Amino acid sequence: MRKGDRQIVEHELQETGFSPESEKAKNKYVEEEDEDEEEEDESVEKIFESREVPSWKKQLTLRAFVVSFFLSILFSFIVMKLNLTTGIIPSLNVSAGLLGFFFVKTWTKMLHRSGFLKQPFTRQENTVIQTCVVASSGIAFSGGFGTYLFGMSERIANQSGDAYRGVKNPSLGWIMGFLFVVSFLGLFSVVPLRKIMVIDFKLTYPSGTATAHLINSFHTPQGVKLAKKQVRVLGKFFSISFLWSFFQWFFTGGENCGFSNFPTFGLKAYQYKFYFDFSATYVGVGMICPYIINISVLLGGILSWGIMWPLIETKKGDWFPDNVPSSSMHGLQAYKVFIAVAIILGDGLYNFCKVLSRTLSGLFVQLRGTTTSISRTSFTLEEDPHASPLSPKQSYDDQRRTRFFLKDQIPTWFAVGGYIIIAATSTAILPNMFHQLRWYYILVIYICAPVLAFCNAYGAGLTDWSLASTYGKLAIFTIGAWAGSEHGGMLAGLAACGVMMNIVSTASDLTQDFKTGYLTLSSPKSMFVSQVIGTAMGCVVSPCVFWLFYKAFDDLGLPNSEYPAPFATVYRSMAKLGVEGVSSLPRECLVLCYAFFSVAILVNIVKDSLKSKWGRFIPLPMAMAIPFFLGPYFAIDMCVGSLILFIWERVDAAKAEAFGTAVASGLICGDGIWSLPSSVLAIAGVNPPVCMKFLSAATNSKVDHFLSRSS
Amino acid sequence: MRKGDRQIVEHELQETGFSPESEKAKNKYVEEEDEDEEEEDESVEKIFESREVPSWKKQLTLRAFVVSFFLSILFSFIVMKLNLTTGIIPSLNVSAGLLGFFFVKTWTKMLHRSGFLKQPFTRQENTVIQTCVVASSGIAFSGGFGTYLFGMSERIANQSGDAYRGVKNPSLGWIMGFLFVVSFLGLFSVVPLRKIMVIDFKLTYPSGTATAHLINSFHTPQGVKLAKKQVRVLGKFFSISFLWSFFQWFFTGGENCGFSNFPTFGLKAYQYKFYFDFSATYVGVGMICPYIINISVLLGGILSWGIMWPLIETKKGDWFPDNVPSSSMHGLQAYKVFIAVAIILGDGLYNFCKVLSRTLSGLFVQLRGTTTSISRTSFTLEEDPHASPLSPKQSYDDQRRTRFFLKDQIPTWFAVGGYIIIAATSTAILPNMFHQLRWYYILVIYICAPVLAFCNAYGAGLTDWSLASTYGKLAIFTIGAWAGSEHGGMLAGLAACGVMMNIVSTASDLTQDFKTGYLTLSSPKSMFVSQVIGTAMGCVVSPCVFWLFYKAFDDLGLPNSEYPAPFATVYRSMAKLGVEGVSSLPRECLVLCYAFFSVAILVNIVKDSLKSKWGRFIPLPMAMAIPFFLGPYFAIDMCVGSLILFIWERVDAAKAEAFGTAVASGLICGDGIWSLPSSVLAIAGVNPPVCMKFLSAATNSKVDHFLSRSS
Repeated sequence: MRKGDRQIVEHELQETGFSPESEKAKNKYVEEEDEDEEEEDESVEKIFESREVPSWKKQLTLRAFVVSFFLSILFSFIVMKLNLTTGIIPSLNVSAGLLGFFFVKTWTKMLHRSGFLKQPFTRQENTVIQTCVVASSGIAFSGGFGTYLFGMSERIANQSGDAYRGVKNPSLGWIMGFLFVVSFLGLFSVVPLRKIMVIDFKLTYPSGTATAHLINSFHTPQGVKLAKKQVRVLGKFFSISFLWSFFQWFFTGGENCGFSNFPTFGLKAYQYKFYFDFSATYVGVGMICPYIINISVLLGGILSWGIMWPLIETKKGDWFPDNVPSSSMHGLQAYKVFIAVAIILGDGLYNFCKVLSRTLSGLFVQLRGTTTSISRTSFTLEEDPHASPLSPKQSYDDQRRTRFFLKDQIPTWFAVGGYIIIAATSTAILPNMFHQLRWYYILVIYICAPVLAFCNAYGAGLTDWSLASTYGKLAIFTIGAWAGSEHGGMLAGLAACGVMMNIVSTASDLTQDFKTGYLTLSSPKSMFVSQVIGTAMGCVVSPCVFWLFYKAFDDLGLPNSEYPAPFATVYRSMAKLGVEGVSSLPRECLVLCYAFFSVAILVNIVKDSLKSKWGRFIPLPMAMAIPFFLGPYFAIDMCVGSLILFIWERVDAAKAEAFGTAVASGLICGDGIWSLPSSVLAIAGVNPPVCMKFLSAATNSKVDHFLSRSS
Repeated sequence: MRKGDRQIVEHELQETGFSPESEKAKNKYVEEEDEDEEEEDESVEKIFESREVPSWKKQLTLRAFVVSFFLSILFSFIVMKLNLTTGIIPSLNVSAGLLGFFFVKTWTKMLHRSGFLKQPFTRQENTVIQTCVVASSGIAFSGGFGTYLFGMSERIANQSGDAYRGVKNPSLGWIMGFLFVVSFLGLFSVVPLRKIMVIDFKLTYPSGTATAHLINSFHTPQGVKLAKKQVRVLGKFFSISFLWSFFQWFFTGGENCGFSNFPTFGLKAYQYKFYFDFSATYVGVGMICPYIINISVLLGGILSWGIMWPLIETKKGDWFPDNVPSSSMHGLQAYKVFIAVAIILGDGLYNFCKVLSRTLSGLFVQLRGTTTSISRTSFTLEEDPHASPLSPKQSYDDQRRTRFFLKDQIPTWFAVGGYIIIAATSTAILPNMFHQLRWYYILVIYICAPVLAFCNAYGAGLTDWSLASTYGKLAIFTIGAWAGSEHGGMLAGLAACGVMMNIVSTASDLTQDFKTGYLTLSSPKSMFVSQVIGTAMGCVVSPCVFWLFYKAFDDLGLPNSEYPAPFATVYRSMAKLGVEGVSSLPRECLVLCYAFFSVAILVNIVKDSLKSKWGRFIPLPMAMAIPFFLGPYFAIDMCVGSLILFIWERVDAAKAEAFGTAVASGLICGDGIWSLPSSVLAIAGVNPPVCMKFLSAATNSKVDHFLSRSS
């Protein structure tokens, strides 16, 4: 039952290497779903036959967008918090699906009681909410608040000491403008291709299919019952998690105070960031992520903070100067960041090649096999858009779905015209925002973009895996190198990354929504409108949420702070590599980087060549890289989550299956939404009253002596 | 299913005023039990008919005493910990019963596998273990390590500044000697009365009956299954609780460090001892105690620390001098102790009168009604001890039980001779230990003792409520006043209290064991021997356990320490009142004491006159008094336990009923047994490595400044 934040899932796949394994897990899951579907194949649409499908305009109700707006604020907070803490974003689709269902259901029930209900709650409307929420909270990720956009800021630049290469501090105005200018292009680029992707190629879109299945099931009688139970469980854990965060807050009155600095395994282990930080969010994330991800993250943490960093630290004064602060990019920090970057790039390169080759070969087979059918279909289409181009082999479900999918058409001229107008506006505006980003760079990006967008949408349809941030990194290096270090190449690269990421990610999202719409008889028109409205919401909500965090927490983005925003440093470092080359790295760092780059590729090759039997026990390099930079504390949270789920599955597999994701979503949402009051309190200057401090016994006796003397 | 530490239950009733309410609760419970029994009335002994009843010598197996020995160490630790922290000791009978069953069952299973099993595990043997464990761990309470005995020490005396009135510091030698000299008298005093109490008077002994029922049920097939499940639950929570205590230990590297000083409700509330101290023991205690006890304790805490002490504190310099330390008995501390003493005495007096009047009226009715049958029975007895004096009305169970009960006789000359010899020895030895305690005081006590022992045994049989510590308090006041303040009356009073308490409490215990033995076809001889051996064990084990605590924790007995031993101060203060009168109290304290003394009596009268419908909502004064002195933190733990049980009962009443006590026992035992390694670590000089400290935000910034300067 996956649906909702496909963007997020994909981004997270991108960012954390939720690659072959999670893909497999997802596929396996979807296969099960498919089996279900095949079992019910003859029946799904028959169940719904008696219910009228509303016209596309009636699918777009006001209540759907009001609910979407509130949910998009909730999810923007959660995604932003995750962005800024570790960058690992699990799939929140079930919670989005459940909460959307819950709110509209409550709404309609209330209206029904008061007699004002004009229109029943349909699955089409539910799909509209999902699409809108996911589009909106997707911007919280693809907006780059934890990556490229925040990487431009002075605060991140100062850590690596390269502020002179160009900085652009965040400010509400230009961020909103930037997002509005770049976020809609992707939508227009794939609109003309929807029929080819969904009906002719019959691409899977595992997440989209699962989402549709979830929504369909919600609207059958048993589905309603299960969904209600799940909502109750989610609500319970939401409250627990929220109250727990609230309770924790009281004890954080100072630096390194509170539960998030609890030296669970002793002070020595704490020094190397091995501790359980009592974060409900990451326990929940661990429950959602596949076991291998959690294990990989933990292994990465042990390898880096348990073995490598302590060893490299002994070379202090030899490999790197011993008079720099620990957060300086000229000291140990450089090894942490660049080795992580090397792994991420190695893993990214491997998977880019893999997905691209599959995309191209899949496309080749498809094109050769379906040339006739496509031409025939297009012909039919031109004759009469409402006639159904059904072959006698098609099942009842397929017939009905195809008929509804083709009923409402979005004219091609509208899509092409829209793309050209927005591209032109954007080309005119962007160089004024980033004067390092020349207009011809943007033009080149916009010319290539439709092809890349198609590739990404097609690849996501095959593998459920969006490569958006890989395309983004491509842009960093190419545009960065083109601009050169003298002409602010770093900033140009980061901005280009933003442009590219937004286009390709929204493109694959929309195609996936079309698939969902196809399976729930929702009109492509309503999907498109909902995605546009959701994107617009996201362009306003996400920057505001980010702004709240940015204003509330002065140490946002600094290492060892509550919100270290690790990928901001990683992205800036990549841009630096792009424009400067490898000359600025400390001694032996480059050798280590090459080694880990190769190892990342090698591990992936081994993993894929072993196939799922043994390959699923090989850790994922991308997941291993994250704790290199951050430390393994969140890996311990995630493993605790895994452990809970594991035990639960052993004790009561059926319940764990039905409610595991609801519990995890509750934990994540509750803790996530606490960041709203917590940042409001921080802005209002309300400080927590108590500091829960951890001192060694020796330091403690000194402190006790000091306190007794001073009082 | 109550069995095991009857002594403890009764003492705790005594100490905490688990009076009418808990009595009712217990009676209600036992009524249910009785109903069960009545249903099975015809069948209980029929079920066991096919099983041979071993001879009394065969009931006393070596394995039973080995298991008893280990269990008595476990329970001594638990009882000692409870003694020294709050003095509230819940009924641990179920855990004693379960663990005894579990160990011997494992033992016999192992032997059975290896082919060495000579004798199967019988319910008689189980009864022997129970009796022995309960007798042994009972000494941990009646030995007065938390009350009169520790109240003699210099450490307690210094708090009230009356060390000049006589102190006797604990030392392993004299404590063991004292216990051996006084603990066996009670046993001999009631042996001749066993038949009258059990068979002729048919006294209920609710705890004893419930215990027998538990043991009987353990040895039926379903009973074995449930017991095994309960053992598993107990074991799980035992481990959790033990590991939690172990984890907590690491963070207690300094004064006021660790979870037991967690200012859960803020620092201001913590100052007035309102906090949750994460003690698994008291959460477990709260789960076992009736709701009204928990509520009473909490109310008492709110009344005293929430309202009265803050108010009295404002009178500083007026009512009491403002230059004394907060722990001095000339300051606020005096109000805390003496108001608590007043309530305890008021409640005690009321209940003493109540139980005594019921005892006397019950005795009167019984004697009038059964004169003939007694004389007839004695006659029969003289004729042929093996003949069964059965009236035709008796059921099969009664017949069989009576026959077995009368089979093995303990000669009266043995009991009387034993009593006289021990009393003589004791009269000779005790004045050498406590030279303030003249030989004629002791003689008077020993002359009155058999009557009081009978009263107490009879009262316990009627109401399940032993008045042992009330008789002890009586001895404090009478002997103290008799000796007078010039001749070390305080020490004489406290020592006399010990003598008296040990006699009356062991007497009622043994009678109750006879009842249990009667219902499980165990021989009175084996019960007596088991009780003697258990008492001897207790006389060795308890002082050793106390000695471990005393040596390991330097601040044992000081207020605000981990082990404040509150009743030691209370008992010493009572002795002081006895010899000095009320002249030493600070201003207005006496008025408040009179007021609370009267209120305690009044509340009891109201409670009893309202009957159970409304009376059960009236709090218990005795339970309210404990937090007056200690602070309400443990009341919060107990209420958390109550709350857990309450919710559990709402969610799954059957499971809560079956496993609630097992969970609670697990929590108590795990935390309790952790005190063994923790005191060993303390003696070995191993200090916890980390201090978890709680500072206000302002203090914290000062400390941070200090630490950054000093490093």
